Amino acid sequence: MFFYLLRKFSKSKVLTLDTIGENVKKAEYAVRGDILKKAHEIVESIAKGKKYPFKTLTPCNIGNPQFLGQKPLTWVRQGLSLVVNPRLLDYPELPSYYPPDIIDRSKHLLTRIQGGIGAYSDSQGLLVVRESVAKYIEMRDGIGPSDPADIFTTNGASPSIDIALTVAISSAQDGVMIPIPQYPLYNALITIKKGQAIGYYMDSSDGYWSLNIEEMQRSVDLAKKNHIKPRALVVINPGNPTGQVLSEENMQQIVKFCEINNLVILADEVYQDNVYIPTKKFTSFRKVISQMGTKTELFSFQSLSKGFYGECGIRGGYMEILNIDNQVKDQISKLASIMLCSSTLGQVGIELVLNPPNEQMPSFERYEIEKNEILSALKRKALLMYELLNTMDNITCNYVEGAMYAMPCVSMSKKAIDEARKIGVTADKFYVMKALEETGIILVPGSGFGQKPGTFHFRITVLTPEISFRDLLLSFKKFNDNFHKQYRD
Amino acid sequence: MFFYLLRKFSKSKVLTLDTIGENVKKAEYAVRGDILKKAHEIVESIAKGKKYPFKTLTPCNIGNPQFLGQKPLTWVRQGLSLVVNPRLLDYPELPSYYPPDIIDRSKHLLTRIQGGIGAYSDSQGLLVVRESVAKYIEMRDGIGPSDPADIFTTNGASPSIDIALTVAISSAQDGVMIPIPQYPLYNALITIKKGQAIGYYMDSSDGYWSLNIEEMQRSVDLAKKNHIKPRALVVINPGNPTGQVLSEENMQQIVKFCEINNLVILADEVYQDNVYIPTKKFTSFRKVISQMGTKTELFSFQSLSKGFYGECGIRGGYMEILNIDNQVKDQISKLASIMLCSSTLGQVGIELVLNPPNEQMPSFERYEIEKNEILSALKRKALLMYELLNTMDNITCNYVEGAMYAMPCVSMSKKAIDEARKIGVTADKFYVMKALEETGIILVPGSGFGQKPGTFHFRITVLTPEISFRDLLLSFKKFNDNFHKQYRD
Ligand SMILES: Cc1ncc(COP(=O)(O)O)c(C=O)c1O
Ligand SMILES: Cc1ncc(COP(=O)(O)O)c(C=O)c1O
Repeated sequence: MFFYLLRKFSKSKVLTLDTIGENVKKAEYAVRGDILKKAHEIVESIAKGKKYPFKTLTPCNIGNPQFLGQKPLTWVRQGLSLVVNPRLLDYPELPSYYPPDIIDRSKHLLTRIQGGIGAYSDSQGLLVVRESVAKYIEMRDGIGPSDPADIFTTNGASPSIDIALTVAISSAQDGVMIPIPQYPLYNALITIKKGQAIGYYMDSSDGYWSLNIEEMQRSVDLAKKNHIKPRALVVINPGNPTGQVLSEENMQQIVKFCEINNLVILADEVYQDNVYIPTKKFTSFRKVISQMGTKTELFSFQSLSKGFYGECGIRGGYMEILNIDNQVKDQISKLASIMLCSSTLGQVGIELVLNPPNEQMPSFERYEIEKNEILSALKRKALLMYELLNTMDNITCNYVEGAMYAMPCVSMSKKAIDEARKIGVTADKFYVMKALEETGIILVPGSGFGQKPGTFHFRITVLTPEISFRDLLLSFKKFNDNFHKQYRD
Repeated sequence: MFFYLLRKFSKSKVLTLDTIGENVKKAEYAVRGDILKKAHEIVESIAKGKKYPFKTLTPCNIGNPQFLGQKPLTWVRQGLSLVVNPRLLDYPELPSYYPPDIIDRSKHLLTRIQGGIGAYSDSQGLLVVRESVAKYIEMRDGIGPSDPADIFTTNGASPSIDIALTVAISSAQDGVMIPIPQYPLYNALITIKKGQAIGYYMDSSDGYWSLNIEEMQRSVDLAKKNHIKPRALVVINPGNPTGQVLSEENMQQIVKFCEINNLVILADEVYQDNVYIPTKKFTSFRKVISQMGTKTELFSFQSLSKGFYGECGIRGGYMEILNIDNQVKDQISKLASIMLCSSTLGQVGIELVLNPPNEQMPSFERYEIEKNEILSALKRKALLMYELLNTMDNITCNYVEGAMYAMPCVSMSKKAIDEARKIGVTADKFYVMKALEETGIILVPGSGFGQKPGTFHFRITVLTPEISFRDLLLSFKKFNDNFHKQYRD
């Protein structure tokens, strides 16, 4: 009776789709969206005995290398196991399994980690880790100094990006320029923070997905006309989903553009160790800005999840800030401290990959072999994918210069577009759905990242093990060529 | 010349204290604020040879047990080391160091973690982990079922709280009721999300810091009068900073209050394993709501950082949702997926502590010994602190029933208040600053958590090693009694 009365007061839920914020509802996150739901359904029907033209699904949708069999670096895992359980250091047999350098490194790290990895660290991250990060940055760029006080470790790069956007967006009129196609985290977070995403199109038709300054200027001018205040520009280099590696010249143009338009640069450089084209190399925005001598404000992001290390699950990452006002930096420190600290194991992981064994150290050879195996396989697969995709009907694909993805352009017939419209989806989603049903390959439709209106793309990773990669692409070719025959106008 | 021209365009920084959002600037986070800055200065001057009446600082400001010497559980660290470096499993000597049960558990976990701990997991967390969490919850409450689909693992409890608040706050009029004093994360996040924090006072004068429904009603009514829409109520139980353990009866009143006022409950239950008073035990809001038969919407939070495990740096935590609308749940899943996944090692840590060795297993005895050592020391220290604080001039302190803190009330003379005002701080901050300079003990002033106007408190942790805890408190007593003599009206 008493509870009956209570019920009368609360006829409906407090939180419903009608009462939660538009910012939450509107945030899109396609990489794990509808296609993945469909994939789960297929797995379930296979378990129930339903037959498909394939035995298992092949996830080519997420940049998750170890999920697909990439092996972790021995150096990293040995180091982590020792800092996690320092008692291993007391076992007399340890030196017959672990080389002395990783034992020394772990001991060194442990002396610098007060309370061990089970204690909250400084909220920006352990000093010993940030010192190694700073040294790495100086070596990478050949430009010093990098200050450990400007480095913030986070659980993967994602929370670093979240902090940067929190600072960049202060009102609903504030805009952040993002490449289209983009890594969907950006659009989603800008929407959640009630800012304005200002898309600028990258163009695959030049063969490079390079960033065109005229297009960027068009986009910023349009935004201003719509009373949006552009505050920051996101550049992803090497690109996800586009796989391009920017030239230094293009980067200088971008910096100049940001200076003229008063924009902070958010440089997503998580794929800095994933460059496959011999004629190009990764250059950091820090280096370009420093060499140009401008005071462009910069947040740059790096992650333990990518590169040849690929330790996605451990959640290590950091951002370095450059030319940021000191009072703003204090605010950033405050934001970092609210979440206490990032995973100490993620931090140690970062230290181990950015300060790897050198030539004099016993772990060096094995480290180099493991690293080169991973990188050379990625390189071969990137080339193979580029070549095979370009043999497929209606598909054109740029060279996969870096990162872990290709973003081919598919020209769609009117018939295919109409067919898709009938079932209420875009043509790229329709295509990717069909590919899933017929080949078991999970892709992400281009619309998940954004694409020029009237063009259609999909994203495919280069992470499938090499042994089956060619067959996978050939089975995909069969699907694709059939699809276009079936929907020929 | 070219760069000179550029400079002309960008006379000032894009991001300055004037241009970043009020929501960021206003967010307060006192636990790592001014006092800590002062502490850093002292450390530096000690290094430079300056003399203080103490040798080192004693941090009693953060709930960071291992930083202060608490030992991690062997079971947890052994398990983590094996999933981090599964090659350890191949070493023939391993069984002479690791008991068979942790070897078996790690092998079991590894078979259920596709790609190992280096792969991104499902964004809600590994199913094997969420299954153990659900079983633990059912056992704890004696009420089933708990559904793994309603559990979201995060990097510590903090990001779970962030997600819950993101969903609860949809406009600048939306209010979240928080206890005063509160754990400052709540106030900070509500401010950043541009919602309204609605404080309700907890009252130390009843001897219990219990939650008074009349006070809560007063607070909610006042908010409504000010055109704020209360949407959720935060309860921290056991309390931080207040140390109280709520009675079931009080909890039923709170649930009833939330039903009547249409509020979602955010139950911060991260100290559920930290109860020191024999006459009380922890009861979950899930249990109370289920037994009352109401449909009150609930988010409940638990963390690897607290309890007797105290693994703060590993960043493990989760939330369970109850009675949440399914469409809202989909939105929560989307929010979780944007950040990809939480630390797999944090997840494994959670699995290991919530599914500990049972009586039949070889690790049981050691686990129980380690656990009881930690908990019984905390219990003894909680009692000692309560007793000694109450011998100090002008201090009254409630029994530390749970969590890791006492929040004593200090009655301040007019003279002390005036003296503080002269140097531009509140009397509690003045007092804590003096304590730091004279004893090296780092405390947090009550104003960092909020307190009834005209009252003054500070928070002190019970985490200092037992061997020096009494001396610490006695040196503090000396400071305190002197302070009040010096500032007698
Ligand atoms: C461009 C880009 N930035 C950031 C991230 C975030 O990854 P994490 O949070 O694991 O570092 C990713 C992950 O795929 C990415 O592709
Ligand atoms: C009441 C309360 N909630 C949540 C947290 C968050 O801790 P963590 O993110 O480490 O789980 C803390 C930490 O001190 C706390 O005291």
